Amino acid sequence: MMKPQTLKGFRDFLPKEARKRQYVVDTLKQVFESYGFEPLETPALEYEEVLLGKYGEEGDKLMYRFVDNGKRRVALRYDQTVPLARVVSKYTSILGMPFKRYQIQPVWRAENTQKGRFREFLQCDADIVGSSSPLSDAETIAVAAKAIEKLGFTKYKIIINDRAVFADISKKTITIIDKLKKIGREKVIEELLSKGVAKTPDEAASILSSIDGKKPTERINEIFSSLEKLGVEPQKYEFSPTLARGLDYYTGLIFEIEIDDYTAGSVCGGGRYDKLIGMFAGRDIPAVGFAFGFDRLMEAMDELQLFPDDLQTTKVLVTVFSPELLEKTLEISSQLRSNNINTEIYLNENASLEKQLKYADQKGIPYVVIIGSEEVKNNTVTIKNLKTREQKQVTVEKLPSELI
Amino acid sequence: MMKPQTLKGFRDFLPKEARKRQYVVDTLKQVFESYGFEPLETPALEYEEVLLGKYGEEGDKLMYRFVDNGKRRVALRYDQTVPLARVVSKYTSILGMPFKRYQIQPVWRAENTQKGRFREFLQCDADIVGSSSPLSDAETIAVAAKAIEKLGFTKYKIIINDRAVFADISKKTITIIDKLKKIGREKVIEELLSKGVAKTPDEAASILSSIDGKKPTERINEIFSSLEKLGVEPQKYEFSPTLARGLDYYTGLIFEIEIDDYTAGSVCGGGRYDKLIGMFAGRDIPAVGFAFGFDRLMEAMDELQLFPDDLQTTKVLVTVFSPELLEKTLEISSQLRSNNINTEIYLNENASLEKQLKYADQKGIPYVVIIGSEEVKNNTVTIKNLKTREQKQVTVEKLPSELI
Repeated sequence: MMKPQTLKGFRDFLPKEARKRQYVVDTLKQVFESYGFEPLETPALEYEEVLLGKYGEEGDKLMYRFVDNGKRRVALRYDQTVPLARVVSKYTSILGMPFKRYQIQPVWRAENTQKGRFREFLQCDADIVGSSSPLSDAETIAVAAKAIEKLGFTKYKIIINDRAVFADISKKTITIIDKLKKIGREKVIEELLSKGVAKTPDEAASILSSIDGKKPTERINEIFSSLEKLGVEPQKYEFSPTLARGLDYYTGLIFEIEIDDYTAGSVCGGGRYDKLIGMFAGRDIPAVGFAFGFDRLMEAMDELQLFPDDLQTTKVLVTVFSPELLEKTLEISSQLRSNNINTEIYLNENASLEKQLKYADQKGIPYVVIIGSEEVKNNTVTIKNLKTREQKQVTVEKLPSELI
Repeated sequence: MMKPQTLKGFRDFLPKEARKRQYVVDTLKQVFESYGFEPLETPALEYEEVLLGKYGEEGDKLMYRFVDNGKRRVALRYDQTVPLARVVSKYTSILGMPFKRYQIQPVWRAENTQKGRFREFLQCDADIVGSSSPLSDAETIAVAAKAIEKLGFTKYKIIINDRAVFADISKKTITIIDKLKKIGREKVIEELLSKGVAKTPDEAASILSSIDGKKPTERINEIFSSLEKLGVEPQKYEFSPTLARGLDYYTGLIFEIEIDDYTAGSVCGGGRYDKLIGMFAGRDIPAVGFAFGFDRLMEAMDELQLFPDDLQTTKVLVTVFSPELLEKTLEISSQLRSNNINTEIYLNENASLEKQLKYADQKGIPYVVIIGSEEVKNNTVTIKNLKTREQKQVTVEKLPSELI
């Protein structure tokens, strides 16, 4: 017999986990839409030619690619930015600029699997295409911050920099300096020496200090001024001249969001990339946006216990006492449902009450309604609260109001 | 330059269409959950071995299969029933039986593309695993009917049969009889003759009549009795002894839902399949469920104009009059957002008012707020209703209440 196994790096999400994912996705959507971002969906499979070469050598290696039945070279969605570029070029006149879109779909990467890294994962992007205004930079940061707060995080920091800060600094230097937060000052100085950027420790320290001491650019000051007016608290964001992320990709603003009590890494990263979206259109199209690391968000929310208790949407299990009383069970279930109470009927007429209660417990359903022959005679039912284990009898008429 | 093209049978969903899809998905979820169905997600890629051979020769041909970077033979999700069987076998003790799950994810099939048939499409399944009770058959039909009604369809018919009706009839005969609705009585008789099932027209007619005249089985009568108690109107469902669908797959109940004014085919099909879910577990596990044809649902809703007008979630565009007045624009936008009004700021400070109004029109945003220098002086704003083209001045304080 075949083993019911899944591929390494691919996951099943059983109801409890699926509900938590849905909660985060719904929250993000709600916040994105409150800022006027619109939904977009693109195909899982694209022409390899459309996706290839945009992500560098590593991307090409990690992409799932194959030849389909029609001999076309195809590839699975690797990120949502190249598809966005394709969409912007294909539907320019329909979309209207600026185009603010969010996209929440899975992507596939043949990564080495390790803790927190998967081969199929959800990407949550929000981007503004067609505006080069600092205002759109600020809006992007503001909507990301709002999403973080809506999810329940109160202690977080938005680290902000401008690529212009690196104008006169070599790539090699920046790549090392970018590690400051992760490895510390000493290790950075060591690496500046070992990689030949600096000849003496003093020189290395001075390179580091000169970057770390840079002042915010005028653009950053404009963004900060807009951020404040958009209601983002000033203590939540800071200028960090050593933040470098995705050097080849970004052309202006770059930012990351870190959660204070979550150490696995930033949960959001983004910035301005004015040279990428136009790649199919043959001209530069300004763009700014970010992506949430969905799995990190989920992990951080678990660790900080930010998920609501009541994600189980089923409110009540109506038990079945005997086949003869089934009719009453169905009637009462219908009544509850027509009162918008999410109701499950236990679907084996011959199971013991004990088994049915255990089932409700296992599923985390908060209430059980018991309809025995005594109850039917008196036109009542018994409600049992599975958390407090209390139970009481109420009339059939009053049942819905007891559960709303 | 590369063409921004998509693969045949694959689609982009721009915001207007994406919102409609989201509306249908959300409605289905809501109804499924109101009956106690729980969400499940499974991976897009599985071992080929897990998926292969379950769908017959055609399935194997239409499946997207390839060898991944680790030399594993893998395949893209072809339906959601085999993954469900795998999940049930892998997590039996965690899930608890009966297990009522819904699953709404894309599947991929290398079909010949034609009107309404795509290579990537959303499947919407709801199934009950682990109960052989007729009550679970009835619940399945009831939840499907409820979903249809919640989407706004009022005229529809649920066609119901029991595979037991075909107990003593050959496969060949059933396959022909199944076409009765589509091709009519005469053509069915012709085919019974040409395929050698009947020797004379009289014999063919008598075979057809004998099946068409079959009485509901006892099981069907039990299901009908539960359906009524579950609140499904009796005129909405009927016994149809010539309905055969998916002969090899179903073991009891079979049903389809047809929309009266939509002729492209049934929008929902399902039934009981007690031999499939246990394929990884090595024992029979009873199951009953259905799938909605998502693209048909979308098409039927479009044709019958069942989509709400207000799927655009952005309520108001706040225009930018001049860079100097930007501060006021941002403050007012923040105020609107903190009143839970979905607000977009126009993100180019130098665009003409005309251009900004046109943008709102194009996106279907119902209101525009204009903040000119006169308005700032008087602490007022102008609200323009883009549908009625009416506009009026209100104080900044009163603005949110005008838009709620």
